[in-house]
Order: sequence, then C-alpha cells, then structure tokens
Amino acid sequence: MPPDRARSKKKFRQGGGSSGRRSSRFITEFELIRHLRQTTPDVAGLSSSILAGIGDDAAVIKPRRGHVLLITTDLLVEQVHFDFAYMSYRQVGYRAAVANLSDMAAMGASPRYALVAVALNPKTTAADVKNLYVGIREACTMAGTAVIGGDTSSSRDTLFICLTILGEAKAAQVLERSGARKGDVLYVTGTLGDSRAGWEILKARRSAPSSVGRSQGYLLKRHIRPTARLAESRILAETRFASSAIDLSDGLAGDLRHICEESSLGAVVDLRRLPLSESLVSYAHAQRRNPLDYALLGGEDYELLFTVPMKNLSRVDALIHGGQLCATPIGWMTAQQKGLRIISGSGTAESLTARSYEHRIATNGLQP
Amino acid sequence: MPPDRARSKKKFRQGGGSSGRRSSRFITEFELIRHLRQTTPDVAGLSSSILAGIGDDAAVIKPRRGHVLLITTDLLVEQVHFDFAYMSYRQVGYRAAVANLSDMAAMGASPRYALVAVALNPKTTAADVKNLYVGIREACTMAGTAVIGGDTSSSRDTLFICLTILGEAKAAQVLERSGARKGDVLYVTGTLGDSRAGWEILKARRSAPSSVGRSQGYLLKRHIRPTARLAESRILAETRFASSAIDLSDGLAGDLRHICEESSLGAVVDLRRLPLSESLVSYAHAQRRNPLDYALLGGEDYELLFTVPMKNLSRVDALIHGGQLCATPIGWMTAQQKGLRIISGSGTAESLTARSYEHRIATNGLQP
Repeated sequence: MPPDRARSKKKFRQGGGSSGRRSSRFITEFELIRHLRQTTPDVAGLSSSILAGIGDDAAVIKPRRGHVLLITTDLLVEQVHFDFAYMSYRQVGYRAAVANLSDMAAMGASPRYALVAVALNPKTTAADVKNLYVGIREACTMAGTAVIGGDTSSSRDTLFICLTILGEAKAAQVLERSGARKGDVLYVTGTLGDSRAGWEILKARRSAPSSVGRSQGYLLKRHIRPTARLAESRILAETRFASSAIDLSDGLAGDLRHICEESSLGAVVDLRRLPLSESLVSYAHAQRRNPLDYALLGGEDYELLFTVPMKNLSRVDALIHGGQLCATPIGWMTAQQKGLRIISGSGTAESLTARSYEHRIATNGLQP
Repeated sequence: MPPDRARSKKKFRQGGGSSGRRSSRFITEFELIRHLRQTTPDVAGLSSSILAGIGDDAAVIKPRRGHVLLITTDLLVEQVHFDFAYMSYRQVGYRAAVANLSDMAAMGASPRYALVAVALNPKTTAADVKNLYVGIREACTMAGTAVIGGDTSSSRDTLFICLTILGEAKAAQVLERSGARKGDVLYVTGTLGDSRAGWEILKARRSAPSSVGRSQGYLLKRHIRPTARLAESRILAETRFASSAIDLSDGLAGDLRHICEESSLGAVVDLRRLPLSESLVSYAHAQRRNPLDYALLGGEDYELLFTVPMKNLSRVDALIHGGQLCATPIGWMTAQQKGLRIISGSGTAESLTARSYEHRIATNGLQP
C-alpha cells in the first residue's frame, strides 16, 4: 500500500545510504534466496518429503503417514526478546530457533520444517543476515529440522524475526497442557534459573568487562546456547508416561500457571526440591540473592515441565535412576480452587498468585 | 533475555501508561486467547481435522489423506506494508490475510489453517487487537480457513503482523513458479493496476477529503478489500491446464520476473493486451498518467499470472468464453537470454530490465 511496498519486499540494505540506486551495498531477495539454497544442508531423511522449498509462493511437504502435524509460530522483537548489544546475529538466530524447537519438545513432537521471516532495518548488513540464518540453521539442523521457506521485509528501525516450526507426532503421543490430573506429580528436566543468571552476567560484563570463571561460563552458555529438550520429550511421548507437558520459556511460576489453566487445576511446588546447578547457587550467593528466585521466576531455561500420574511414577523414576531421563520431582497437582502454592523452608504452603510473581518480575526484577 | 521478556510475551497495553500495575487498561494474553476461542467460528468441515487449536505450545492438525501440505509465511510491517493513518485495524487484518491466502491460490492449493503472530505497540488498544483479528478471520472464513494459533508480543513502536497459512492440494495439482516452458502463453485474471490507483485515491482523500464517485469507489474497494483468486486457482489446479502460476503482489513486471527466474526463461508482455478496468482508465487519464504504468508496475492486485502450454490453449479459451474463468492472454514465454520484454503501441518489443522498473517504482513512483 505505501509507495515503497514492492521495493521493501524485495531487498534490504547493506550498511547505510538511502538512495534508490542499486549497488553492491544492496542485497536483493533473489540473492538471499540463492545464498540460502546453496548453503542449506540436506537434513537427514527429509529431502524426499520436501517437494518444494525456498523460492516459491509456498513450501510443499508430504506429511508423514499415520502422523499428525504440529505448528507453532513465534514472533521475536529486537530490544524486547533480543539485543544485538549483547549477542551476535548468529547467537540471536540460534536462540530464536531453540525457543521454537522447544515448543515442539513440549508437545512430544519431532520438529521437521522451519520457515523464517525477518524484517530487517537499515543497519542490517548482508553479513548480518547470513549470520542470523547460520545460527537458525545450526539449531535446526541439530534438531533434524530443515528450513524450507520464509519471507524478508524491511523495517524502519526494529528488527523482527518470526519463526514457524512444523513437527510430526503420532496422535496418541502428543503431550498437551490440558492433560494433567489432580494428584499427578510435577517434574522438571535439568536445572532451573541458569539462563536468567547467565543473562545478568552478560549484562554486567557489558558495563564492566571482566574475565569469566568456569562457573560463570557455564551460566553464560546456558543463556546463549540453550538446548531444546527433544530427546527427553521423545522418551516421554513414546512411553506415554507423562500426562501433560510445557517448556519453560517464561519461568516455572508462569509456565506452571498455563498447565493449571488448561487442565483446570491448582498446583504445589516444593521449592526445597527445585534442581539448582552449583554454578547458580554460588553465583546467587555472591550476588546476595536467593537462587530459588532465579529458579522460580527466571525464564528461557527451555527445560520441560511435565506431570506424571501416580501409576507411572515408579517407571519414570526407573528411567531417571537408569540415567535415561534427567528430571526431578518438584511438586504435585491439586484442585483448582487451591490455586498455585509454594512450599518454602518452613514446610508450609503459601499462595503464589499470578499478580505477585508478575509484579516481582515486571516491576522490581528478581529480589534478593 | 531482557528483563521484561516474560512480561512482554504475556500481555499488551490498552492505551498509554507505563507503570507495571495491572488494571483494566491491560489485556493479558490469557484474555486474548479466551476471546479468540469464544469468537472463532467453526469453519465448515475443519473441526474434525483440528486436534488442538489456540492455547497450547503448538496447534495440532490431522493432514488430509492423499494430499500434500503447503506452507507460506508473510511478515507485514506498519508504515512499510500498511498504515493506520489510511486504514482501520479491521481493514489491515483483512488485507494481510488476503495477501497470504493469495499465495495459496498461486500454488493451486486450498488454504485450511492460519496462525497469526502480532507484535503490538503501546498505542494498541484491546479493541484494536480484536478488530485486527475480526478482519483476519473475515478473510480466512470466506476462504474456508480456520485460525488455529499464533503468538502475541509487544513492540516498542512499530506494529508487526506475521501470518502463516497452511493449505492442502493433491501433489499433481500443485502449481509452481518453475513449471513454465518456452512458448507457453501468459494469462492474468481480472484487471490490473486498480489497487495502486485505489491507494493513490486513499492518500489524496487523506490530505484533501472529498466525496468519491462510483469509479473511484471501485478502485478504493479493489485496494481495501482485495480478493484472493481461489476459485480460479481451483479450476487451474483441477484441470491442470496451467504450467505455472504466481499471484500479483509486487506488480506484473516484478512477479513475472519470478516466473522467468524460476523457470529459466524470458517473457514478452504485450502491453496493448493488458486488461484494464474502465475505472482505472478514466482515473489515470484524469491524472494525466498512462494507465499501463499502473497495470505493469502497481502491486497488490492479487490477481493470478499463469502460463498455459499451447496444447491447452483452446481449452482455457473455452473456459474463458464459457464464463468459468475470467482471464486474458497478455504475452508468452521466450528463451532466457531474451530477458523480459514489453510490446507497446508501436508493436516493437523493448527490453524491460529489472533495474528500470525497480528504479521507476522505487525512486520516482509511477510516471505519467
């Protein structure tokens, strides 16, 4: 509709400049498509399912027989979800892909195909775009996912990334948020709060550069290169031991609330059971903060939170003790009217309202 | 990663204000999801295929047996692709959906499912968001497409919409850009250039409000409420008379170049044959401009451009004369080295380089 619509869809700028003249400082959408086609790795076992990929009005895939298809889309905004002051284009791309792949893990699905739409601002160079795609494809390829299409636009100032992932699962193995039942035990994979601590370290280094010890390095890595829990998801889906699942993107308190809402239940979390890394505990203590706040309120760990019915507990524990599943029981599901509660040091359950944690995170940040 | 990440994913503001306090001026993502669930119409014949819709980590669908799946994603940026100074939220939503549904028409596919991701700025009110969705669903429902998921984020200033559409087709009926062969005849549906003229009228009315005659009203409507050519696409796909197709979003010159690139061909367009509406001709003359420039360079008509092999010409012409297909032959495909050429009044073919039309549109706008 505005006069530069056609142009904005077709190319984006390398470096500054505002003339309409084409030069080596411009990269056209054609050139980007050509580059992507050349560099897209042939993801194992998928090429026969991709009937048309990058370069047409739509990508065409052949759905896998006997499977349902899962689709998720995520819009990431510069300076809201990521900031190039702290991370490279490649790192931002990698994390964006993991956030979306993690949604597939949360559903018990295998991610297969990705579409990448980006709106680039005048600062973005051709190298930046390519690095962004390198990061996205890195995460996707590790997850057995092929980038099959997308869109490029220009933006006046803010850079936007919209990722869409398609995955496959057997219908009976899909893990929904709504499947939890009263009495089910809550588990989380891995450790909690590391990513949030990593983010703080990243920010502190920016204002006062310093060397990073092994412990801080671990937390940084947990923030910059998170992992989507696809292997754990696979086990839970195939065994059908879990009744519901979600990935921890907004923090344990926030994401547990989604399971409660969708399953019409309440829940109790025993804070004394929350799995904490040694690195987080020593970092939090050095900061005179409570590591549990990181675990409860810090987001972007991309661990899985899942519920297990009583009848499957011993089998899940066997998987854990056998080293096939890294997970910890942290609480249980209750009747809806009891709401979301936490048990802290004293052993008494206190209410954790939506307002209290949203307020703590939004207004004051994490509290010591 | 930034401190307000969790919050930004969970709610957006109604009106202004910057305090973290919750009040009636805020709408949470939960509330929006609840609203969408309540108001989403049950699109005919789709409910049994949607195993999980809005509200989980991913939507789950059952692919239709014997069909391939098509996916397209489109990122639309405020003040680049749309401007609320000229259109309502509902109109912007409607057009955004048509632009994406039109990609399905271009592939010969039936659009089935849509995902809507929006990044809202502090100006956006709850009513605005709802109206945006009303417009999106209006276009989707007309096309037999159900909105099954999405994402909401906040943005500091610019509003972004990312639409993903999934469609179904029989594998042998998919129309690709790469299917054209030398000698194939080029057709377009409907008339060209109306949307661009409508956009100019909209802009002019904004700076100097005036009443709009029937002719200008037609052009305005063509811009504000375009139609995705799904019925025409259906006929071309089922008869398999066309060898390739694309939808006209960037303008005839630009989109024909995509067919040429993907099919490794050149093309000749006979400008004397371009289908023009009476409204466009009279508007262009009143503006002392050449209506052909609108037809050749104006975008967002969402008509179909398709190629027909010689052996199917008489059958396509029979459909046209029988009133089943509204389309006009406008040129033919040539060898690649001949490039993109136009025949104008004099009857001689002259080269239309990518540079010339991009330059004309980008730097100077349409020329008289």
